[in-house]
Amino acid sequence: KINGQRLWDSLMEMAKIGPGVAGGNNRQTLTDADAEGRKLFQKWCEEAGMTMAVDEIGNMFARREGTDPEALPVYVGSHLDTQPTGGKYDGVLGVLGGLELVRTLNDLGVKTKHPIVVTNWTNEEGTRFAPAMLASGVFAGKHTLEWAYDRVDAEGKRFGDELERIGWKGEEKVGARKMHAMFELHIEQGPILEAEGKDIGVVTHGQGLRWIECTVTGKESHTGSTPMHMRKNAGRGLALITELVHEIAMKNQPNAVGAIGHIDVYPNSRNIIPGKVVFTIDMRTHLLDKLNGMVDELLERAPKLCAEIGVDFAAEIVGQFDPPAFDEGCVKAVRDAAERLGYSHMDIISGAGHDACWINDVAPTAMIMCPCVDGLSHNEAEEITMEWATAGADVLLHAVVETAEI
Amino acid sequence: KINGQRLWDSLMEMAKIGPGVAGGNNRQTLTDADAEGRKLFQKWCEEAGMTMAVDEIGNMFARREGTDPEALPVYVGSHLDTQPTGGKYDGVLGVLGGLELVRTLNDLGVKTKHPIVVTNWTNEEGTRFAPAMLASGVFAGKHTLEWAYDRVDAEGKRFGDELERIGWKGEEKVGARKMHAMFELHIEQGPILEAEGKDIGVVTHGQGLRWIECTVTGKESHTGSTPMHMRKNAGRGLALITELVHEIAMKNQPNAVGAIGHIDVYPNSRNIIPGKVVFTIDMRTHLLDKLNGMVDELLERAPKLCAEIGVDFAAEIVGQFDPPAFDEGCVKAVRDAAERLGYSHMDIISGAGHDACWINDVAPTAMIMCPCVDGLSHNEAEEITMEWATAGADVLLHAVVETAEI
Ligand SMILES: NC(=O)NCCC(=O)O
Ligand SMILES: NC(=O)NCCC(=O)O
Repeated sequence: KINGQRLWDSLMEMAKIGPGVAGGNNRQTLTDADAEGRKLFQKWCEEAGMTMAVDEIGNMFARREGTDPEALPVYVGSHLDTQPTGGKYDGVLGVLGGLELVRTLNDLGVKTKHPIVVTNWTNEEGTRFAPAMLASGVFAGKHTLEWAYDRVDAEGKRFGDELERIGWKGEEKVGARKMHAMFELHIEQGPILEAEGKDIGVVTHGQGLRWIECTVTGKESHTGSTPMHMRKNAGRGLALITELVHEIAMKNQPNAVGAIGHIDVYPNSRNIIPGKVVFTIDMRTHLLDKLNGMVDELLERAPKLCAEIGVDFAAEIVGQFDPPAFDEGCVKAVRDAAERLGYSHMDIISGAGHDACWINDVAPTAMIMCPCVDGLSHNEAEEITMEWATAGADVLLHAVVETAEI
Repeated sequence: KINGQRLWDSLMEMAKIGPGVAGGNNRQTLTDADAEGRKLFQKWCEEAGMTMAVDEIGNMFARREGTDPEALPVYVGSHLDTQPTGGKYDGVLGVLGGLELVRTLNDLGVKTKHPIVVTNWTNEEGTRFAPAMLASGVFAGKHTLEWAYDRVDAEGKRFGDELERIGWKGEEKVGARKMHAMFELHIEQGPILEAEGKDIGVVTHGQGLRWIECTVTGKESHTGSTPMHMRKNAGRGLALITELVHEIAMKNQPNAVGAIGHIDVYPNSRNIIPGKVVFTIDMRTHLLDKLNGMVDELLERAPKLCAEIGVDFAAEIVGQFDPPAFDEGCVKAVRDAAERLGYSHMDIISGAGHDACWINDVAPTAMIMCPCVDGLSHNEAEEITMEWATAGADVLLHAVVETAEI
C-alpha cells in the first residue's frame, strides 16, 4: 500500500503554487506558475531516483529503470496544469499518485521488469489554449507539433512562444516513445461514485466531445437611438443558441450534456448593441452516433434561429474526440487490483476528456477514478478526502506493478 | 455662416488622436488619448483668443469675453471622449462646432453681450466608467464629486486616480458656474432625420434611461462530467433575460428600446459551466411612466425566470435619468435659426442621453441634431457629410448669437 499521508502532503505542497482566489488553484498552462510547479515535480522525481526527459511540447517523463533492458515502460501520469478557477486535485492527483507509487516501490525495495515512467502532459485543460489534451494529442498523432505551436491564447500569445518563454521546451521528438501500457488516476469530476458509495471507478469508456466555436455577427449600434426594428443584436443570437444547446442535450438524455462556458462580447459596452459575440459550445455523450446527431441538429438549427433575427452565424470545430473504449486487459488489471485490495468499485464512463483518451489510441490504456465531493470540479471548491486519494493510488500501484511485472 | 471646411478639417485632425481599428476612434475617457485630445482642443481655443478653465472633474471651459461684464455666459459644447469602437463625430462635432462658431465670430469681428463658453464635458460615454454623462451629472448636482471619483473601470482603476494621472484634474469647484443658457449640437445617432430628408433636428425632448446591472449566480462546474439535472448554469439566466428585455421593449412600442450591451462571464472557460454572469440592461423610452413600468416588469419577471432554472438573480441601477423636456425659449431659438437660414428641419426626440439632458435641470438648454448615415453610431463606421455638419454648426451659431445678443 502507498503512503497516503505522504501523497496528501505532496498534493498540498503543489497547491501552494499558483494559488486561486477561493482556496483552489490558478496554475494555467505555460504560465510562470506552471513552470514553478514543473520544477517542484522535477525535484521530487530526482529525489526519488528517477531521470527526467522533456519533449518538444513540454511533456515531462520521469523514468524509474526496470530490470529488463528490452522491456517497454509502463506509463502513469496526468497533468499539473489547472483551470483559471480550478481545484487542487484535477490532474495533479494522477501525477503525484504516480510519484507516490515510485516512492513506495523505493521504500519496499521492489524492482519491476518494465521501467515505470511518471508523466506530466502539457496543457490538458485547454482553457488558455484550445483544444484540451493538446500535448497528449500531438503525442498520439492527432495534431501536428506546428499546429499546436500556433494555438493562441485570448491575448494573442502563441503556445510555442510561451512554451519557450517558461523554459520547458525540450529536445525529444514528440511521440517517439513506445509504451507497454499507460494508466491514469483522476478524480471523477462527477457525482456518481460518491452517490453510489464506491471507492473506485473502473473506467471502461469515455464521452466523446465536440467544441464548436460560434461567431454570431450583428451590427454595432447605439442602444438608445437605434429603433428596435433596425437592430441586429448579436447578443440575441447567443441567447437563442444557449437555449438550443440546452434543449438538444435534454432531449438526448440520458448521458448527454451541452453548455456554453466561454463567451466574448464585442465591443462589450453598456450602450452599444453587441455587433459580434464569439462563444464555444461544449457537447458530449458516450455514443458516437448520438454525438454526431447532436452536432448536426445544432448546426442545422442555429443558423436558422440567427437568420430569423437578422444576424449571421458561423461555426468552427476547435476541439473534438470520439468516445474512447479503454483496453480490456488494462481495465481488468484495475478492476482486479480494486477487488484484491478490498475497495468497493464500479464500472464507470468518464464524463471528462483525459490524456488517457488520446494515449489509448497508441498504447493499451486504462483509467482509475476516485470520488470527489458533490461531483464538483472545475471549481476552486473541488474537494476529495485523503482516504479516496489513498484508495485510488493503491489501486494504481497494484495495477501498474501487475502490468510492469516484478 | 460658419466655415464648413475649417470645421471639417478640425474634426479630421481630432480623429487622428486615439484611432480605432476600423476608421473610427477609441479615445475613451481618462486615457492617454483623451489627454492628448484635450491638449489639442486647448491649443485651438487659445489660438482663437479664449482662456481655458478646468474644474475638479476635468470639465474644460474655454471663454470668449462678452461686452457686458455682468452678463452670464452662453454655453456651447459636448464631449471629446468616445466609445471603445466609436465614431469621429459623436460628441466631437458639438465641441468643435462651438470652437468653429467662435472662430467665425472672430473672423467677422462680432462681439456678443454675453460671454460664450465652449465646453468639453468629461466622461459622457460611460463605457469605461458608468454612468454616462458623469461629469455633467456632477455639475448639475445629480451625483457628488466623491461618488464620481470612486467609480471604477473593468480593471479596478478609480475615476479620480485616472483623472489625476492624465493631468486634467483642475481646481475649480464643479457646478460653481451659472449659465445664461446652454446649446449642444450632436449627431442624431438614429435614422429619422436622414429618412425624412431633414437637415436639422430641433430636439424638444429626450428619452429617459435606466441601466440595470444584473448578476446571475449559478455554480461553476465541469461541462463534461456534471449531469444536466445537477447544473446551475448562469449563462442560461443571461439567455432568458436577454429575450425578456427584448420582449418588454417590443410590447412597449412605439418609442421604447431595450438591450444588453455589456456581458462578463465568470470564469469564462470552455469547459466550465458559467458560475456567474454580470451584465447591464439598457432600457429607454421618452415617457416616464412607461419607463418605470418596463423596469418594474423586468425586476418582477427576471428573478422568477432565474429561480426556475436554479440560479440566483440580483440587480442594481447603475445609471439613470428621467426623460428631459428642453427649454421652450432655447428650442424656439434653434427652430427660428434653422428657419431663417433656410435649412429643412423637424422636431425630434433624442434617443441617446446627452450632457444637455443634465444641464437642462440647472439652465435653459436646447439641442440641435444633424443626420448621420444609416442612423449608425457607437460604431467606427459612423459617418456624416460636411454639409450636415455645416448646417448644424450654422444653426448653432445663429441660436447662440441670438441668445448671447450682439
Ligand atoms: N479532466 C478534465 O477536466 N479535462 C479537461 C478536458 C475536458 O473538458 O474534459
Ligand atoms: N450620446 C451618447 O451616445 N451618449 C452616451 C449616453 C447614452 O448611452 O445615451
